Amino acid sequence: MRLALFGGGRIGRVHADSIAGHPRAELAWVCDPMPDAAQAVAARHGATATADVDAVLADRSVDAVVIASSTPTHVDLLTRAVRAGKAVLCEKPIDLDIGRVDACWAEIGSADANVMVGFNRRFDLSFRELRDRVHAGEIGRIEQLTIISRDPAPPPAEYVAKSGGLFRDMAIHDLDMARFVLGDIVEVQATGANLVEDYIEDCGDIDSGVVVLRSAAGALCHITNSRRCTFGYDQRLEAFGSDGMLTVYNQLPTSVRYAGPDRTEAARPYLDFFLERYGPTYHAELDHFVTAVEKGDRPEPGFADGRAALALADAAEESMRSGRTVRPS
Amino acid sequence: MRLALFGGGRIGRVHADSIAGHPRAELAWVCDPMPDAAQAVAARHGATATADVDAVLADRSVDAVVIASSTPTHVDLLTRAVRAGKAVLCEKPIDLDIGRVDACWAEIGSADANVMVGFNRRFDLSFRELRDRVHAGEIGRIEQLTIISRDPAPPPAEYVAKSGGLFRDMAIHDLDMARFVLGDIVEVQATGANLVEDYIEDCGDIDSGVVVLRSAAGALCHITNSRRCTFGYDQRLEAFGSDGMLTVYNQLPTSVRYAGPDRTEAARPYLDFFLERYGPTYHAELDHFVTAVEKGDRPEPGFADGRAALALADAAEESMRSGRTVRPS
Amino acid sequence: MRLALFGGGRIGRVHADSIAGHPRAELAWVCDPMPDAAQAVAARHGATATADVDAVLADRSVDAVVIASSTPTHVDLLTRAVRAGKAVLCEKPIDLDIGRVDACWAEIGSADANVMVGFNRRFDLSFRELRDRVHAGEIGRIEQLTIISRDPAPPPAEYVAKSGGLFRDMAIHDLDMARFVLGDIVEVQATGANLVEDYIEDCGDIDSGVVVLRSAAGALCHITNSRRCTFGYDQRLEAFGSDGMLTVYNQLPTSVRYAGPDRTEAARPYLDFFLERYGPTYHAELDHFVTAVEKGDRPEPGFADGRAALALADAAEESMRSGRTVRPS
Amino acid sequence: MRLALFGGGRIGRVHADSIAGHPRAELAWVCDPMPDAAQAVAARHGATATADVDAVLADRSVDAVVIASSTPTHVDLLTRAVRAGKAVLCEKPIDLDIGRVDACWAEIGSADANVMVGFNRRFDLSFRELRDRVHAGEIGRIEQLTIISRDPAPPPAEYVAKSGGLFRDMAIHDLDMARFVLGDIVEVQATGANLVEDYIEDCGDIDSGVVVLRSAAGALCHITNSRRCTFGYDQRLEAFGSDGMLTVYNQLPTSVRYAGPDRTEAARPYLDFFLERYGPTYHAELDHFVTAVEKGDRPEPGFADGRAALALADAAEESMRSGRTVRPS
Repeated sequence: MRLALFGGGRIGRVHADSIAGHPRAELAWVCDPMPDAAQAVAARHGATATADVDAVLADRSVDAVVIASSTPTHVDLLTRAVRAGKAVLCEKPIDLDIGRVDACWAEIGSADANVMVGFNRRFDLSFRELRDRVHAGEIGRIEQLTIISRDPAPPPAEYVAKSGGLFRDMAIHDLDMARFVLGDIVEVQATGANLVEDYIEDCGDIDSGVVVLRSAAGALCHITNSRRCTFGYDQRLEAFGSDGMLTVYNQLPTSVRYAGPDRTEAARPYLDFFLERYGPTYHAELDHFVTAVEKGDRPEPGFADGRAALALADAAEESMRSGRTVRPS
Repeated sequence: MRLALFGGGRIGRVHADSIAGHPRAELAWVCDPMPDAAQAVAARHGATATADVDAVLADRSVDAVVIASSTPTHVDLLTRAVRAGKAVLCEKPIDLDIGRVDACWAEIGSADANVMVGFNRRFDLSFRELRDRVHAGEIGRIEQLTIISRDPAPPPAEYVAKSGGLFRDMAIHDLDMARFVLGDIVEVQATGANLVEDYIEDCGDIDSGVVVLRSAAGALCHITNSRRCTFGYDQRLEAFGSDGMLTVYNQLPTSVRYAGPDRTEAARPYLDFFLERYGPTYHAELDHFVTAVEKGDRPEPGFADGRAALALADAAEESMRSGRTVRPS
Repeated sequence: MRLALFGGGRIGRVHADSIAGHPRAELAWVCDPMPDAAQAVAARHGATATADVDAVLADRSVDAVVIASSTPTHVDLLTRAVRAGKAVLCEKPIDLDIGRVDACWAEIGSADANVMVGFNRRFDLSFRELRDRVHAGEIGRIEQLTIISRDPAPPPAEYVAKSGGLFRDMAIHDLDMARFVLGDIVEVQATGANLVEDYIEDCGDIDSGVVVLRSAAGALCHITNSRRCTFGYDQRLEAFGSDGMLTVYNQLPTSVRYAGPDRTEAARPYLDFFLERYGPTYHAELDHFVTAVEKGDRPEPGFADGRAALALADAAEESMRSGRTVRPS
Repeated sequence: MRLALFGGGRIGRVHADSIAGHPRAELAWVCDPMPDAAQAVAARHGATATADVDAVLADRSVDAVVIASSTPTHVDLLTRAVRAGKAVLCEKPIDLDIGRVDACWAEIGSADANVMVGFNRRFDLSFRELRDRVHAGEIGRIEQLTIISRDPAPPPAEYVAKSGGLFRDMAIHDLDMARFVLGDIVEVQATGANLVEDYIEDCGDIDSGVVVLRSAAGALCHITNSRRCTFGYDQRLEAFGSDGMLTVYNQLPTSVRYAGPDRTEAARPYLDFFLERYGPTYHAELDHFVTAVEKGDRPEPGFADGRAALALADAAEESMRSGRTVRPS
């Protein structure tokens, strides 16, 4: 299968590596408005660099595209790629504005079956194992889900300013994880605080957040976020059910522990940030996408999942502003 | 120091054992309207059994009383004991009705300095160590506190009916723990669910709850409760700060682990329920009380702490009913 | 049951506390050649102090004695107490000279049924659970046993000089543990080293040791000892079998863990030394003794167990000196 | 750098993948007396298949060879490759007969500087971290090293018969690990047992072993081996020193833990066998080899290390047979 990549930035390079490393995929094009960025990525994997979207979409040998460009370009590229008959793997979020997302969805209609949204954490081995074991009934009926998700360090002010806010930019992964494990969400409560960096508050954003969800099946979910964590990338999940509990603990770089006069069983800091902790998920995500396209299956998570996570982030934002429980749209 | 005990039930017997085992305390009276209950406890420790409150309070050799009778009797006994010049260790809650608590407080005035409220978990070695290390600055500024608190099995319907509800009966310990670590609380959000037993819903109560708090200093706190937990008494605490994190994990009966064909590092279920997990806290609590009375110090947690935890439970109840953020009274 | 205690030193005080705290036992006498030592312990528990062994043994109201005096006095006191018809709980070792032990055994004959030897670690909840689960077949046939046993700090030179050497003084507990789990031992290899303190070498003793045992049933056992451990009292046990493994990990003072920029999941140092780590075993040991005496049962570990552990220590010593595998006598 | 691979079997395929995946290496030849085996591996990576050793060694564009053929062919291939001026990465063991190893060494002389021996575990991130931290002085002077090494399941009888015995075939990795951490070894004690499978005893081999080593610097090391482990590949290392301890724990496939009515904190079985547990070490080993050859550095572990581990295995065998402590030759 031949793929084209839109976006030659950090996350674009991650996808380029995944495509190049996949036994049944080939990176045909790298498309970026910045020629140098496109060229650097393309050269590494023997692909063709371009800034011309139409040229890429007109290439009938290209089966699928990966959209890893800046967020505001997602909707346009996704729509055009779908119209051009390509399967699409689009980085999250589809857009920060749910109105634009809904308009896009109306536009592509049932072709959403060919769109996958890049919630890569669903492909983490530990999270997926928890989900699968929960769905297999190992802990009975799931009643409570605890998600702890803290980034090692806050992004710079310019990123924060355009990010859509902590709930849409960061918690959205956790909101999708809640849906992945619990299914549909019907109620959202949220609150936030400014504890980490003044410039985040100056951007009108929070740096610490708590979201409480209720699922359609009645389970309660609690998400804790922080933009800064001194001991690594804090990424945990705990499912509590009528018959037991499953926990995903943080992951360590090695299995070495130290004991000495002032401490015992001390491990090193946790795996740092997403390329280290979640690196393998990008390969698994691409493999799922490639396999689904090959088989004509609907890839998951799909457009509807991307839309739903954004609606939950919007609801969290509204709940924080109003101090009220909100039903997601 | 000579002490009198009000209440010969389960928790009364726990206090009787603590008093009898304390090197500087002596159990003089056991007072209970049920003569058999009083007699059984008194006989075990060489104390005098009675149903006559006045006789106990008139005994000038008695320095202090422990109130472990049923909740509706607390305010009356506490007030009379304070008037009689006794120091008082009163089991939580002071009362389920904050109006009665405030009236009691008005009545006793500055004599509240002689009243201690039985939030025994403050005397748990692990929780106290976490609190002390947080206050010593080991994790910098505390930003988030996670409390997970699940009982092994729900109480019977008759207990639930009179309990005041999950927030006032069960979460109140966790609300006090939040205050113990974070200080004053200024905002409360709460929600609940019925997932465990139908009879709890029939009583008009919830069996699963989530409470989110904001402290005066700006920290966020999250409490998760359930009335049932299949793997033991789930009692955890995690403090996240600008420089690190401190976690209190659950406690195991032994340090034995099993590895075999289908699992590794498997421990036994956690210590079960409060007499096993928190047994030592009752001794430490009594020792603090006895020492404070001996020295003329104000014991902690005091009347104001008992009142504050109840106000938070009331606010949680109100937030759950209204779907709004509530400031505690 | 009325008991007399021989020895008012550190370990004597531990036994005095156990006796005083036992619901069916009473400390009648404390006998020590040093009147102050006897008096101090006796006064604390309302017993009578004396230096006169005969007076104690002549007291027909005394059912049993606990021998916690210095090692060279054990055989004499044990023999006289048995002759006087008392049940005996004798601290390990019976004697450092196996010839004297055998002579004592010949002397008391079948009255050894009334003698218990104080290998208190058999009463540790974790070690006993491991043993019971192994014997119940949970890991199939046991094939390998790993014992790691390190003291926090070496004893002073004067103690080392009279100790009988690391194998007889320290490893003897581990040799007994091997027998407790594996049964009879038929082969011993040992080696040692001087790594910790020069004065131990000056005493002609080692401070680090390794012993390898083969049981009659064919299992291999490995013991590692050190006289110094900077992170607490290192006391671990691991049983490997045809179907799985059971491990006793070290024990921590609290369940608090720390995570920060340079480490995660860090616990405090392990419980320090025997009174902290093994305190509860002395109570359980005494309870077993009292119950066995009450019922007329043979208490365990008995005289033969005390003799066998010493024979293994002798064999280890001989193996280390000769560089050869030794069969214990 | 162009490499040739000798041996198209299981371990040969592992090396072929490492070479093909290395950014600066290219697999030129795959040489195996079985044409199909050579062809299958060669085809996968675009290399040339052959059964002709001379043709490979005559190819002047080939810089280095990897010897992953059957053990009896190692010495001949290694000698010829060195004579042909190639750098050599030779799988362990160089040979099972130390006489042949020494003759080979005499033959190649100082060209041993171009030979690396495949003790891949030295490239395990956790083991290497332990070694580096020990050498950096983090635990003071190292005094005791505990190595636990158990295979998931025993090899078939035909493998066992030619394996050279447990010490030369399996423990040799652990003996090298002891040298990696402790340096030269001066004393060996060993014992073994037949507990796992009768056919191993029928082959004249043991299936369970214990080896005790003393290093030139005075440290004691203990190795425990078994040919069968029901809970995965049991691969642990613990270094105890004057100031603390470093432990390498086993590794789990995910960080998921389960708690339920009969157990808590239960993980899945450990990573199974060497391709799963040690897969990454083959890449790191090859990278070290390639880099050393590029820079003209002496790769490690070298010929002398391969010889030394075999000498320790021989000494262990002799100690087991004689029941005596043995100094390695």
